[in-house]
Amino acid sequence: YGKNTIKFLRLHKEGKKQFVKEVEVCAHLRLTSPQEYLEGNNSLVIPTDTIKNIVLVLAKKNGISSLEQFAIDICNHFMTTFCQVAYVKAYVQEVPWQRLHEDGVPHIHSFICVPDGIRFCEAEQCRNGPLIVFAGIKDLKLMKTTQSGFEGFYKNEHTTLPERHDRILCGEFFCKWSYGECKDFDFNCIWKKIRECILEAFAGPPDCGEYSPSYQKTVNCIQMFVLSRVPQVQVIEVVLNNTFYNVVDMKNLGLTNDKEVLVPVETPYGSCACTLGRK
Amino acid sequence: YGKNTIKFLRLHKEGKKQFVKEVEVCAHLRLTSPQEYLEGNNSLVIPTDTIKNIVLVLAKKNGISSLEQFAIDICNHFMTTFCQVAYVKAYVQEVPWQRLHEDGVPHIHSFICVPDGIRFCEAEQCRNGPLIVFAGIKDLKLMKTTQSGFEGFYKNEHTTLPERHDRILCGEFFCKWSYGECKDFDFNCIWKKIRECILEAFAGPPDCGEYSPSYQKTVNCIQMFVLSRVPQVQVIEVVLNNTFYNVVDMKNLGLTNDKEVLVPVETPYGSCACTLGRK
Amino acid sequence: YGKNTIKFLRLHKEGKKQFVKEVEVCAHLRLTSPQEYLEGNNSLVIPTDTIKNIVLVLAKKNGISSLEQFAIDICNHFMTTFCQVAYVKAYVQEVPWQRLHEDGVPHIHSFICVPDGIRFCEAEQCRNGPLIVFAGIKDLKLMKTTQSGFEGFYKNEHTTLPERHDRILCGEFFCKWSYGECKDFDFNCIWKKIRECILEAFAGPPDCGEYSPSYQKTVNCIQMFVLSRVPQVQVIEVVLNNTFYNVVDMKNLGLTNDKEVLVPVETPYGSCACTLGRK
Amino acid sequence: YGKNTIKFLRLHKEGKKQFVKEVEVCAHLRLTSPQEYLEGNNSLVIPTDTIKNIVLVLAKKNGISSLEQFAIDICNHFMTTFCQVAYVKAYVQEVPWQRLHEDGVPHIHSFICVPDGIRFCEAEQCRNGPLIVFAGIKDLKLMKTTQSGFEGFYKNEHTTLPERHDRILCGEFFCKWSYGECKDFDFNCIWKKIRECILEAFAGPPDCGEYSPSYQKTVNCIQMFVLSRVPQVQVIEVVLNNTFYNVVDMKNLGLTNDKEVLVPVETPYGSCACTLGRK
Repeated sequence: YGKNTIKFLRLHKEGKKQFVKEVEVCAHLRLTSPQEYLEGNNSLVIPTDTIKNIVLVLAKKNGISSLEQFAIDICNHFMTTFCQVAYVKAYVQEVPWQRLHEDGVPHIHSFICVPDGIRFCEAEQCRNGPLIVFAGIKDLKLMKTTQSGFEGFYKNEHTTLPERHDRILCGEFFCKWSYGECKDFDFNCIWKKIRECILEAFAGPPDCGEYSPSYQKTVNCIQMFVLSRVPQVQVIEVVLNNTFYNVVDMKNLGLTNDKEVLVPVETPYGSCACTLGRK
Repeated sequence: YGKNTIKFLRLHKEGKKQFVKEVEVCAHLRLTSPQEYLEGNNSLVIPTDTIKNIVLVLAKKNGISSLEQFAIDICNHFMTTFCQVAYVKAYVQEVPWQRLHEDGVPHIHSFICVPDGIRFCEAEQCRNGPLIVFAGIKDLKLMKTTQSGFEGFYKNEHTTLPERHDRILCGEFFCKWSYGECKDFDFNCIWKKIRECILEAFAGPPDCGEYSPSYQKTVNCIQMFVLSRVPQVQVIEVVLNNTFYNVVDMKNLGLTNDKEVLVPVETPYGSCACTLGRK
Repeated sequence: YGKNTIKFLRLHKEGKKQFVKEVEVCAHLRLTSPQEYLEGNNSLVIPTDTIKNIVLVLAKKNGISSLEQFAIDICNHFMTTFCQVAYVKAYVQEVPWQRLHEDGVPHIHSFICVPDGIRFCEAEQCRNGPLIVFAGIKDLKLMKTTQSGFEGFYKNEHTTLPERHDRILCGEFFCKWSYGECKDFDFNCIWKKIRECILEAFAGPPDCGEYSPSYQKTVNCIQMFVLSRVPQVQVIEVVLNNTFYNVVDMKNLGLTNDKEVLVPVETPYGSCACTLGRK
Repeated sequence: YGKNTIKFLRLHKEGKKQFVKEVEVCAHLRLTSPQEYLEGNNSLVIPTDTIKNIVLVLAKKNGISSLEQFAIDICNHFMTTFCQVAYVKAYVQEVPWQRLHEDGVPHIHSFICVPDGIRFCEAEQCRNGPLIVFAGIKDLKLMKTTQSGFEGFYKNEHTTLPERHDRILCGEFFCKWSYGECKDFDFNCIWKKIRECILEAFAGPPDCGEYSPSYQKTVNCIQMFVLSRVPQVQVIEVVLNNTFYNVVDMKNLGLTNDKEVLVPVETPYGSCACTLGRK
């Protein structure tokens, strides 16, 4: 199969107020026949350049009301226009432009890039199959400076890690969920709600937090919480790439370091991933 | 001379509330004698490992009330402790952790990384010279979707660029300013004010903006505005790495594209830089 | 499941001659019980730190005769030592250090990093299943400046690409093949042979090359050639991330550009991927 | 001032044999008047787009016999064509394409990218001043697995580093030298000779090497050796970004690690830089 990536800006105005969406679109196609590979016969091949034109034309005609709707539009276009397409997947990712505010007043045409978690989505369809929609957030970096530990793990002669009941929990989250065969969802609103759920499940109550006995359990809490709060989500996958921090031993420098100065441990870094669905 | 980079986390608590600063420190030293280079005589060399220990001990003892104060502390320590140091520069850069909020309530120990412009500073000193402090912001990405043009430029037989009076202005800013021989400044407060000035000068009034006739003029406006509003700033340098966007020509696709769909032009990209001081 | 990454150097000497292998190892484990996720019960969890220790101890004890043998050693260790492990995968990637030569004479202890295609491998095993070994090369950048075209493709109203019979073929290759349940293979020797096959199939005969009617066909040629020459390979996957180059139109600059000056087209870039096995 | 970056490919043929140069060119200009910044008056501004056209036209007309000659051509063009240019600098960097060989036979049109040190150069000129040419190599990663130590350094209460007489010396080199006001040099030939000198000075004799008492001394040896062997070089700057490797302590794992397994220390990493000229 083939894929390609297109990056572009979609502007629109309402009166004098300007709106902007900058996206990166990656379209994957698989054709019904492998003749392009086996025989070098290009007669069914849809060139990258044509795919780019289609994506830009769809953006021009339909706008981008939500990333998900745009991905659905792309899938629909390829499935209905090209009978040689056996499978199509459209991945859409957003550049996180946010409207500037001056003393709380929104600016009509100025924006700042705020990459505190990148929104993306995917729509995919096999010929004669349902259109499935996924959405997600990636590059979301979170930290808890307390209320995290790791104890009671398996031990043998290769174990050197001490048990810790007050460590730093820090990492980069990748979360991706499926809406199943979705109907008329308000994708923008649901996405914002899920983002809030992830942050809330990670952090716990603002006044005291919630103890995390492991990265794995935190991953599971996020999944359980999203599934309980957002009925549109069918399955949720969470990957957490942790950064470990070690409390610097300052004894030989004549000081007691009471978890005040820590250094990141760059290798090994760990990662834990889990996919959870409804029964 | 030599330099090295240390990354670490400094935590502190006030009651149950946790505070976090994650910084990357780069210390440059030049010694009074080049004998380490010429003769392989290491007797005056301060190993990287020792420099790391000193930075961590200073963080432990003094905390990091501001990046600038911490950079000053490092310079002072090296100048007063090691008579073989002829010059010291300390660069300190912040990982932009922000406290999480749930429904407007700040969380006592959870943070999110929001890289919408990275704060950094530098302090430098030659033996017997003044201690000079710089501060700055980098990786600040801004966009204006209108109120920008480029006309009346020099033309000859190699000119192919059309004049434009309504283009996108987009780029990544690097701003660095000098406080001179600073006294007891509230560095955190001044930095926030300068950041606001940069955004305001870039965007213009929220209801209408301000026309930019060129990247160069916008750079100059930012500098003039900061110098006029913040008396502590002596000199300000601004570098703007532009991203150009071209309106996609859709005529051969049978459509009129009224600055609705644009693609970034990755090469050539331009950059303009200017340094401006007080008379 | 969880994974983690460890980077280290393994040295050994034969007389005064030094040998070096620098590798990045990533171990994935899945446990038989999800209790760590669901209940926060860590009693079966093997900490990242323990995994790191095991990998380093295996490197110390066994050395790294080939990446593949080392990956097999890791899988075997985890499967035989920990009954709670349901699945293990070991990915091993090499830093491409090559011995320095001075006037053709190899240096006994000096090396240069030459990243012209990175060697990697994977071994994986489910409990009670066979141990499967993969190997591959990635980040291999190749270019043909002629003998490549793209004609006869599907056209409709969104087509703007002209047919071309003499374009640049350039891209980054990722190739990964399976050895099946391998026995006592000379992995180093086979890997080198496959790399040569890839280059030969890409380039064609040195005096004239071989015409490529599409990226897809070139991908297929590489696969067919490797399968025909290297009986140990069961299945081979090739992904090609193309860079397109456009001949610069210099008509409005008064010049005829006969495919002498070309610029890379950064978006859209395309990619084609194919997996081919034996019947 | 302003600068911009252009990336392109220059092909030429001799009979059926194809030659390729892919370069990234960055041109910096400073104008005689700051009116573009202060007044938004663009009448002297040479747009990025025009600069790109000029660079491409020069590549088309002159070819790229050497990076240095091409940089000189660019400087000459801007100085003689535009009287408003006060200063011009042209930086040219090469994508390291190498001709493919099959069984020792060079291929007529196929190339592989081999980034084992990137060649670059700079030419700069002020109006009425001389044209100065620099050349260099960057991203050159070298390692010695023995014959390196670090002893006899300055010690105080913050010292924790032990003395070592047999460590790994590993790092990334950046070397840049000046040819002064150069005449008709064979830049390609000189560059290759300097690269060999750097490798030889780093490694020492192939059968035994040469002991390095510090990174600083190795930097100096390289500089001295290049200056002694290549009379065209006036001044040479070398920056070495070291990677430290620690021997893993395996005592608590019941093993003796005789410098067989080492891990890279990612922070702090050090860097040492020195500039050396002729008397």
